[in-house]
Amino acid sequence: MLVLANDQEHNIEVNEFKLTSRALHPENTEIKVGDNVIGGKKLAIIAGPCSVENKEQILDIAKSVKSAGATFLRGGAFKPRTSPYSFQGLEDEGIDLLKEARKITGLPIITELTSLQYLDEFVENIDIIQVGARNMQNFDMLKQLGKTKKPILLKRGLASTIEEFLLSAEYIMAGGNENVILCERGIRTFEHYTRNTLDISAIPIIKKLSHLPIIVDPSHASGIWWLIEPLSKAAIAAGADGLIIEVHNQPEIALSDGEQSIKPKRFEELMIGLRKIANIEDREI
Amino acid sequence: MLVLANDQEHNIEVNEFKLTSRALHPENTEIKVGDNVIGGKKLAIIAGPCSVENKEQILDIAKSVKSAGATFLRGGAFKPRTSPYSFQGLEDEGIDLLKEARKITGLPIITELTSLQYLDEFVENIDIIQVGARNMQNFDMLKQLGKTKKPILLKRGLASTIEEFLLSAEYIMAGGNENVILCERGIRTFEHYTRNTLDISAIPIIKKLSHLPIIVDPSHASGIWWLIEPLSKAAIAAGADGLIIEVHNQPEIALSDGEQSIKPKRFEELMIGLRKIANIEDREI
Amino acid sequence: MLVLANDQEHNIEVNEFKLTSRALHPENTEIKVGDNVIGGKKLAIIAGPCSVENKEQILDIAKSVKSAGATFLRGGAFKPRTSPYSFQGLEDEGIDLLKEARKITGLPIITELTSLQYLDEFVENIDIIQVGARNMQNFDMLKQLGKTKKPILLKRGLASTIEEFLLSAEYIMAGGNENVILCERGIRTFEHYTRNTLDISAIPIIKKLSHLPIIVDPSHASGIWWLIEPLSKAAIAAGADGLIIEVHNQPEIALSDGEQSIKPKRFEELMIGLRKIANIEDREI
Amino acid sequence: MLVLANDQEHNIEVNEFKLTSRALHPENTEIKVGDNVIGGKKLAIIAGPCSVENKEQILDIAKSVKSAGATFLRGGAFKPRTSPYSFQGLEDEGIDLLKEARKITGLPIITELTSLQYLDEFVENIDIIQVGARNMQNFDMLKQLGKTKKPILLKRGLASTIEEFLLSAEYIMAGGNENVILCERGIRTFEHYTRNTLDISAIPIIKKLSHLPIIVDPSHASGIWWLIEPLSKAAIAAGADGLIIEVHNQPEIALSDGEQSIKPKRFEELMIGLRKIANIEDREI
Repeated sequence: MLVLANDQEHNIEVNEFKLTSRALHPENTEIKVGDNVIGGKKLAIIAGPCSVENKEQILDIAKSVKSAGATFLRGGAFKPRTSPYSFQGLEDEGIDLLKEARKITGLPIITELTSLQYLDEFVENIDIIQVGARNMQNFDMLKQLGKTKKPILLKRGLASTIEEFLLSAEYIMAGGNENVILCERGIRTFEHYTRNTLDISAIPIIKKLSHLPIIVDPSHASGIWWLIEPLSKAAIAAGADGLIIEVHNQPEIALSDGEQSIKPKRFEELMIGLRKIANIEDREI
Repeated sequence: MLVLANDQEHNIEVNEFKLTSRALHPENTEIKVGDNVIGGKKLAIIAGPCSVENKEQILDIAKSVKSAGATFLRGGAFKPRTSPYSFQGLEDEGIDLLKEARKITGLPIITELTSLQYLDEFVENIDIIQVGARNMQNFDMLKQLGKTKKPILLKRGLASTIEEFLLSAEYIMAGGNENVILCERGIRTFEHYTRNTLDISAIPIIKKLSHLPIIVDPSHASGIWWLIEPLSKAAIAAGADGLIIEVHNQPEIALSDGEQSIKPKRFEELMIGLRKIANIEDREI
Repeated sequence: MLVLANDQEHNIEVNEFKLTSRALHPENTEIKVGDNVIGGKKLAIIAGPCSVENKEQILDIAKSVKSAGATFLRGGAFKPRTSPYSFQGLEDEGIDLLKEARKITGLPIITELTSLQYLDEFVENIDIIQVGARNMQNFDMLKQLGKTKKPILLKRGLASTIEEFLLSAEYIMAGGNENVILCERGIRTFEHYTRNTLDISAIPIIKKLSHLPIIVDPSHASGIWWLIEPLSKAAIAAGADGLIIEVHNQPEIALSDGEQSIKPKRFEELMIGLRKIANIEDREI
Repeated sequence: MLVLANDQEHNIEVNEFKLTSRALHPENTEIKVGDNVIGGKKLAIIAGPCSVENKEQILDIAKSVKSAGATFLRGGAFKPRTSPYSFQGLEDEGIDLLKEARKITGLPIITELTSLQYLDEFVENIDIIQVGARNMQNFDMLKQLGKTKKPILLKRGLASTIEEFLLSAEYIMAGGNENVILCERGIRTFEHYTRNTLDISAIPIIKKLSHLPIIVDPSHASGIWWLIEPLSKAAIAAGADGLIIEVHNQPEIALSDGEQSIKPKRFEELMIGLRKIANIEDREI
């Protein structure tokens, strides 16, 4: 019943995974975004706040993470929130602020698409479109994104198997868009000390099964700022192609996810530590 | 940390659940659909095939379940499938066939909305719009459905807590649509004998916390046809307001979910058994 | 990979389950305990406090549950507690008090064995020996119990599959003791509103796969007193052979599990409601 | 409800964890076993077969892992198996063979205790006594081990929270034995590509909450031999104090767990790679 390809221990059902499988595409896929490449020797370091909150905040953070070594800027403009009464994001204004931050820092921008009504706006303005964990099996969205050529960051669903995760990537690719970046962001288990449980094994498994790049989100996987460092190290040691990390200049007053965000200074120190592990793994930061 | 209302053992955070909570709305909500009411004394019995496959199939099944006591007809026209290469439904033709079945049997029809591009079509033609488990936190869809007055069948996500489930209902209600029917359809656990694990406790918990009707889907909860009878009995004994059951005239050649579908004859026998339990619970079938 | 017997949908690996499987033993096993039978037409109703606390408490509760229809008395003497600093039970004194309660009420007594050093004492004094969820795979204990002829109440482990559960029963039977009563008591999932998630499907599955009786523990499965009634009803409707329910005369000051215990008066009312469902299922209370 | 100590985000309930908590014991605990120390700068590398099968096998493997850098020899003599009909280990003969391997290689030996009837034999002959995942909450065993002075390797239960894991260590320490080594070996989740899901976050969390050493078992956590390398790297990068790895000279004919064992040659290469990461983390192999 399990997915697989290129794997003696499990059954091979290559037909279901004809585009995502490494069996039919042995080389790693490298996705170009501006001057950057995701899936190559250099790790993708995506950093920024959970939500874009105001001009000063996003510009301040963008400059900090850029100087510390980040290669992409993240920031939520349209926020998918569990409660209808929670802050839903700055929306269009957030997109404008991200563009301004890009202009100043040169960092390509990534933000989450929550509705297809904004698709054209995103295709025009955003460098990498994120599909959130709760939309991993929003097949309508996957199909529409498959018709674009935009790089897509596809987050694993909270209770999705690796097989289902790859099949969602297959949806996008089947539409004609080969620029899919996978993101492991923790799965839901009985353990409640952490917000989710980072499935570190998913990294080497996906690297073996698929040619697509896979990055890790230690912020959502743990929900705790002091776990970001050890989980980031573990992710790179396990073979991840990059990280997406929540950085906030004032986590204590963040409008969302403050407790899982680190400050720019800590992010800078983190990069120094990660470089050493990256080098051992023959990667660069 | 848990949600709650009207409950001494847990904290009350009524503000987040102001529309779904029973604390502020002590009476059961009864939702009228044609001549039927969901959430009243009479149980809602929704039956039909996983997918609408052709005219003969849907008419045949519709007549059978009607005569056995079903009060609504289900049938998938747009199918959300894990793989892009699986049968995706008859789409518009499926809607037309459902309408024809309604015309002949008088049964209101329910089918799943998978894309907002079909929203107007659904509002015009369908009696109850289903939000599938994978779209339970598709907040964009919830918001748009909140602007209609259509009854919505909201399925619980595979790994969604009861709190999150009610908050998704709150999204729809916050938009102005009070006609929400909840549906427990099994959650994902380590146990793999069944496709999912029916969370039977969710029924009495939701009845206590909320005034909204809650029904049970024993077909998806188990994935095994011979479990439908005992799980249906258990659901009614636990206080469910209805059931949604997959019935197929030829499960062995069904285009989807054949192994969890029962035949019309068995459905008829099931209804007889369920009536006895319903009567004890002061309900009717 | 799944266990099974007598089941077309799954592989049959009868050799691993040669003693527990219904395939090789089509008739239900009925286990005699004094004048009672577990697994026959009459449901086993086991009731009593989580812990035996003092003479007055256990005698009071024993008389109450007896008059309300209970057929067995439960009560913990040796308590397996998560913390070493929690109340560990009255130990030997608890056993003596249970015996006294049996003498006065005539109810056979059931209590948990936590150490093999007490095995002889239990075999001599106790009517049904309980193996707790945390010892379900204490294979040494299972082997030793297999050498006795005592009825064993084997609770399902918190994260044990149905396959593993039956294999633990197989351990006891392989030792020569055929008197195994299975008990579904909830599994551990991501849902934390309840202490555990009652796997209601396990009842009909185990009835199909095995000839052994299976009962349900709604108290531990939910951890919430007001869920005992709906879960007990659901269990009987799904085919359970009995229930084990925590009853305490003063839950608010119980030394353990007070929040999941019901009072004798409520237990009495519960029995009245359950009798109706039992009758429909052609069972008796 | 969560455990904690020395942690601003959660409540501190130091009284329940008075012996395991770092709050009251800020320095790392270092456990001496012969000339080795677990919990110090040098990582503990425990290697060997799942089961001791015969003299040639265990001696052969012991010499290989010793020369590759292992500091302890593992091997099961008494095997806890899910089925009563599976190979249960060489038992006493296995213990003798382990002792012989120790004599020849000088490696301290570690093996699992499955019954208290062997406790004296283990205390006399074995260097580190392992408590298996299925016995993590066998409180009787924990209490008895607390009365010895032997180093105990305590494996986390399949569905045990970090809080419960530390409380089981507290049981041993409350008895007077401070020599507890914790072992993360994967938890049970819905993901079935791997045998279990390695909870990598548990490493830094336990290092923060407790002064006890924690090691990782990548073999049981994954069940797949080719995942041992990336998971071992990740474990060290996340701060683990050591590893326990299944090594077999002929995995294809191993009596148990062959698919998750690596060959001596691969183990040797693994050690070379791990040394680089250990050095970065200021540790030694």
